[in-house]
Amino acid sequence: MADYVYGPGRNHLFVPGPVNIPEQVIRAMNRQNEDYRSPAVPALTKTLLEDVKQIFKTTTGTPFLFPTTDRVFSLLWIDQQQRLNFNVDVVESDWGYGADLAALDYKLRQDPSHSIKAICIVHNETATGVTNDLSAVRKILDKHRHPALLLVDGVSSICALDFRMDEWGVDVALTGSQKALSLPTGLGIVCASPKALEASKTAKSVRVFFDWKDYLKFYKMGTYWPYTPSIQLLYGLRTALDLIFEEGLDNVIKRHNRLGTATRLAVEAWGLKNCTQKEEWFSDTVTAVVVPPYIDSAEIVKHAWKRYNLSLGLGLNKVAGKVFRIGHLGNLNELQLMGALSGVEMVLKDIGYPVKLGSGVAAAAAYLSNSTPLIPSRI
Amino acid sequence: MADYVYGPGRNHLFVPGPVNIPEQVIRAMNRQNEDYRSPAVPALTKTLLEDVKQIFKTTTGTPFLFPTTDRVFSLLWIDQQQRLNFNVDVVESDWGYGADLAALDYKLRQDPSHSIKAICIVHNETATGVTNDLSAVRKILDKHRHPALLLVDGVSSICALDFRMDEWGVDVALTGSQKALSLPTGLGIVCASPKALEASKTAKSVRVFFDWKDYLKFYKMGTYWPYTPSIQLLYGLRTALDLIFEEGLDNVIKRHNRLGTATRLAVEAWGLKNCTQKEEWFSDTVTAVVVPPYIDSAEIVKHAWKRYNLSLGLGLNKVAGKVFRIGHLGNLNELQLMGALSGVEMVLKDIGYPVKLGSGVAAAAAYLSNSTPLIPSRI
Amino acid sequence: MADYVYGPGRNHLFVPGPVNIPEQVIRAMNRQNEDYRSPAVPALTKTLLEDVKQIFKTTTGTPFLFPTTDRVFSLLWIDQQQRLNFNVDVVESDWGYGADLAALDYKLRQDPSHSIKAICIVHNETATGVTNDLSAVRKILDKHRHPALLLVDGVSSICALDFRMDEWGVDVALTGSQKALSLPTGLGIVCASPKALEASKTAKSVRVFFDWKDYLKFYKMGTYWPYTPSIQLLYGLRTALDLIFEEGLDNVIKRHNRLGTATRLAVEAWGLKNCTQKEEWFSDTVTAVVVPPYIDSAEIVKHAWKRYNLSLGLGLNKVAGKVFRIGHLGNLNELQLMGALSGVEMVLKDIGYPVKLGSGVAAAAAYLSNSTPLIPSRI
Amino acid sequence: MADYVYGPGRNHLFVPGPVNIPEQVIRAMNRQNEDYRSPAVPALTKTLLEDVKQIFKTTTGTPFLFPTTDRVFSLLWIDQQQRLNFNVDVVESDWGYGADLAALDYKLRQDPSHSIKAICIVHNETATGVTNDLSAVRKILDKHRHPALLLVDGVSSICALDFRMDEWGVDVALTGSQKALSLPTGLGIVCASPKALEASKTAKSVRVFFDWKDYLKFYKMGTYWPYTPSIQLLYGLRTALDLIFEEGLDNVIKRHNRLGTATRLAVEAWGLKNCTQKEEWFSDTVTAVVVPPYIDSAEIVKHAWKRYNLSLGLGLNKVAGKVFRIGHLGNLNELQLMGALSGVEMVLKDIGYPVKLGSGVAAAAAYLSNSTPLIPSRI
Repeated sequence: MADYVYGPGRNHLFVPGPVNIPEQVIRAMNRQNEDYRSPAVPALTKTLLEDVKQIFKTTTGTPFLFPTTDRVFSLLWIDQQQRLNFNVDVVESDWGYGADLAALDYKLRQDPSHSIKAICIVHNETATGVTNDLSAVRKILDKHRHPALLLVDGVSSICALDFRMDEWGVDVALTGSQKALSLPTGLGIVCASPKALEASKTAKSVRVFFDWKDYLKFYKMGTYWPYTPSIQLLYGLRTALDLIFEEGLDNVIKRHNRLGTATRLAVEAWGLKNCTQKEEWFSDTVTAVVVPPYIDSAEIVKHAWKRYNLSLGLGLNKVAGKVFRIGHLGNLNELQLMGALSGVEMVLKDIGYPVKLGSGVAAAAAYLSNSTPLIPSRI
Repeated sequence: MADYVYGPGRNHLFVPGPVNIPEQVIRAMNRQNEDYRSPAVPALTKTLLEDVKQIFKTTTGTPFLFPTTDRVFSLLWIDQQQRLNFNVDVVESDWGYGADLAALDYKLRQDPSHSIKAICIVHNETATGVTNDLSAVRKILDKHRHPALLLVDGVSSICALDFRMDEWGVDVALTGSQKALSLPTGLGIVCASPKALEASKTAKSVRVFFDWKDYLKFYKMGTYWPYTPSIQLLYGLRTALDLIFEEGLDNVIKRHNRLGTATRLAVEAWGLKNCTQKEEWFSDTVTAVVVPPYIDSAEIVKHAWKRYNLSLGLGLNKVAGKVFRIGHLGNLNELQLMGALSGVEMVLKDIGYPVKLGSGVAAAAAYLSNSTPLIPSRI
Repeated sequence: MADYVYGPGRNHLFVPGPVNIPEQVIRAMNRQNEDYRSPAVPALTKTLLEDVKQIFKTTTGTPFLFPTTDRVFSLLWIDQQQRLNFNVDVVESDWGYGADLAALDYKLRQDPSHSIKAICIVHNETATGVTNDLSAVRKILDKHRHPALLLVDGVSSICALDFRMDEWGVDVALTGSQKALSLPTGLGIVCASPKALEASKTAKSVRVFFDWKDYLKFYKMGTYWPYTPSIQLLYGLRTALDLIFEEGLDNVIKRHNRLGTATRLAVEAWGLKNCTQKEEWFSDTVTAVVVPPYIDSAEIVKHAWKRYNLSLGLGLNKVAGKVFRIGHLGNLNELQLMGALSGVEMVLKDIGYPVKLGSGVAAAAAYLSNSTPLIPSRI
Repeated sequence: MADYVYGPGRNHLFVPGPVNIPEQVIRAMNRQNEDYRSPAVPALTKTLLEDVKQIFKTTTGTPFLFPTTDRVFSLLWIDQQQRLNFNVDVVESDWGYGADLAALDYKLRQDPSHSIKAICIVHNETATGVTNDLSAVRKILDKHRHPALLLVDGVSSICALDFRMDEWGVDVALTGSQKALSLPTGLGIVCASPKALEASKTAKSVRVFFDWKDYLKFYKMGTYWPYTPSIQLLYGLRTALDLIFEEGLDNVIKRHNRLGTATRLAVEAWGLKNCTQKEEWFSDTVTAVVVPPYIDSAEIVKHAWKRYNLSLGLGLNKVAGKVFRIGHLGNLNELQLMGALSGVEMVLKDIGYPVKLGSGVAAAAAYLSNSTPLIPSRI
């Protein structure tokens, strides 16, 4: 049953999430349920809560592991907050552009009474491959001495891009297990600054399922879980963190930069354009590639899956049909990317785009063969 | 690391959830992530949504598979609704007693204007092992021709106890993957009647994450998922349903009755009392056992785990220290239960209760050896 | 397909091999193939060869890990050696009796010229549950200052019974992965004393597949493998050894004694006889139970599987139909055994033997509740 | 522990065995032991023995599933037979050349008395990537009406190259689970013609472990297994066969031809030579690439593993240091190969060979984008 779309060999998964799970993590999750009230699960959870702070680069934050999926996140924030009857002031950017920092600067200046309670920003926009400069946002807030909370959607950035919760004064940051952490879907990982925790005590918004206070109560008791956690995901997270620490978080970030750069070089060699409009916003986790007007990008995605067992990301919303996306985040290495880039070349040719076969791969290889380090454990 | 509480042999998991996962389901979940926007995942989801209706015994209901845990459920309903500023009229029963149907009858009679919008009831109370008679609730509603919605927490009943959504006119029912379905934690499965769907269109309550309309929009498009689902849980659910259908849902329910009866006979043979006060409320999924006042039931649970690798349920809230619970739900057979009952006997003796070793096991065996059918596939 | 004999819940595997695999080992084996010529596999193999000596209690022996099954072993030795045209002098014992040490004594005395090259003996006879006293064999050899090699089939003893290669002067000992080591079938583990290695250099017997010298050549080179090993079994063995060392080999042996004793007490309580004729030969890994003449023991085995998902061992050869066997070796704990004993009781009753239900379980429980230690990691 | 050579992302396994295991097979093997004497295992075995004949393209042959590794096979045949004191007439070919069919023709002509009992030939020589023409061998035997048995080592051919046991009159053919079947190491699969079975009855060679007659006895009884089989490998084989049949054996063979051709085109584009001396002997399962004299091919293999997590095959024996091997057999697809070819290019450049990056990949892509069919289940 499970194989009614069976094709030989591995699926090449290059959507910007969910991403490839390392075999070690799949192995760690291959287990029975356990009683989460036994001493074993709190002991494990304690190490997770301690260690997960490292991926946010925070020592003062308080992390939460929510059993959920990516609905807590991102693009849908605006909609979510509107449903909660918040007063939301949306600062739009064109697709492919980063956050409008000048507008932010202006709005903060216009707010001496500090009616703005929070700035919500996405670190890396998954739909277009745009990375925002969070340190610049912090500087603007500081310039105006504005006390607004800084809330960051780090779904497709944390564990892949350089993210510094403490240094940048981020108050709430969140990511999901199925992104750069390379786990299955199921955990929303949120980290809150002391300031955010304080603010939540007096906030009047309706909260049920994701209420921090339920968790904090159980943190105090040392049992940690107000509800039943997924035992499998806890052990999976333990292994995912172990792998990240073994590689070194900064090496993980460098690897993402290497794969992102190689992808962009290939796109350029194919004569195609990056949806991201300026180099400063280039994303090391996802590249949205603009196709010529005579091509429907959805056809590329469909064909890649049907012929080469390659999963690429569709263009969404405004750029549907106009871009396809190559996700290059998570537990991934150079030759996996090369296989995918080679696949994109063949798809482009098949679909009628006059690509020079080997061109993108050659450009990427020239860069990678100069920049890929030896695997430390094998030297 | 994972084994810092290692003991030889299998863990005997007899808490009322999470429960034992069959090897077939563990196997089905042992897999990579997949792009949920490829044609494979909607095709799989379609079969799940169709088949999951069978476990609710509904043909007209609309099911939803939420990525979540048991927080959407149960005991916490009151708290949840109060946070959402609903006007909640709590009809309390003593612990060990079923729902007060006379009070329900009275309240409905006092409500000719139909200001009561919904009746919320738990089918099986996990904390005490009390099963409510839902068909009686339906009869009371019908008697008063009261249009209130009937909302049922079926977390520890559905797939284990006799539950009939259509026949009993249940409007919303819900369960969790980690209970009788015998999966890991992670899916909240909700089924809504046409009447409930209609009501949700005009309801004014704040809804974000669990809003049906987000799902219905994607159902219409045939892609099914507004957010990223857990691929692993979808395949796990597919296999869990296949196993239930292979055994036959009614046979699954009979098996739970057999194991519940055997457990109660053992408790009686030990000279202990069931927390449930009347036979009509006896639960076939969990038995809460009252211990003598000179024993702390938490010690029993602790000792069982420390010496025999047996996981029993603690008494919660009002009955903390006074009862321990034997969960006997999910993918479980007679000899697994016998091992656990034998373990409880040894723990009782170890802890100072004057149990006759073998007494409970003998009582259970006498019943089971007369009532356990041959495994159909092996005849 | 795999489930055409599906029954709910776990299979209760109580044959004397293959035995229950701990979840940790299943997990460790859940992996891809690897190039066995990369540096990783020799590094792993080195630890295995070093550590596997501990289960033989040898420091001077040389271990070999053969990719094979139990055909290299045991009962079939005689046949094997006859096919290889060896001059085999078979010293038979009646079924249920240990090796005839007086005959051995006599034969060695009659052999001043040392024409006997090797004594082959099984440590634990799996078919009947008879454990031979190897230290007594050694004493007889020493008494006669006879230089014959002492070759021991330890298939159902090593890792479960007290076995001391160096102390008892055993020259070749062997076991299989699917027995007390609790792995899948696939590895034959052989350990050779320096004297045995020396003898093999000048021996003239035909050897191909299992020739030590092929291995020794690769040991010297540090690559270890003359042929392709099963990567999965190597990692499985690593974990199996880790679990044994975590529990402590002597604790593993004590646990087997505990489970063997409990089983024998149950058999006695049922009013049945142990196939083993004297207490000194009682086996802690398998108990062969003699049934009354009016019962066919094969029916017991069949019924146990068909009704209770319990796998018992058939009587073989001379005792076919007359005994059934309870295997109680490998990674197994007290409550698993209690479930099985309870199952045997129910089967006995079902099949028409007048057993008192609960009698065997009570006898076993009385013993176990006094002798089972707390799980060290949970104290 | 298992990860002391950890590198991020997948290992790219391109040795000529063991090969990549499909996730479906890993999943099928993720299971407990079972009693192989229960009715379930013979029922499964029956389907395996029936279906495995298809991969040999025989209807009259009798298959055997030996628990073993590749030592029964191949290159080592000569040594093996010499150890068994057979009179072996070795017809050597230079490395890179196919079997000397003229010499065979000559020898058969010189043997009117039919003293030659068997012709042993390897279908595909794994060390050099040479495929022999078995239909030509059959024609020579027929021409001389010579009754010698035709024994074929099909280890790196069966399930990947065109092999026709019945049509070519092959009497014994064998392969191993870890080659094109894409399983872990552990099964030797042998198929014998009626003529071979007949001959084995009167043969006087020493046989113990691999004696067919032990198996045939159990085949007759319907229990199939003289020794304990690996339950895991049986279920794995079931799934491996299912996948092959789903793709279609002839499509599997075509896929191997596609990947072999693509590899050879890449080698040519790099300006390197194939170790195989004539096109008629080109192997679709392994390509041995000759490196220039100033390069040590072992360095290429080492570097590929250390930097790119790419496992290539070493040159063996006479061609050690002179060739490296790319295995392209088993459950593998186009983009996996492209990743590996791109990796080889980068390694060649790193190691100092003046390769044009992208050249091999471009040549392979040009061929593959014209010849790769859509995945049938996804059309």
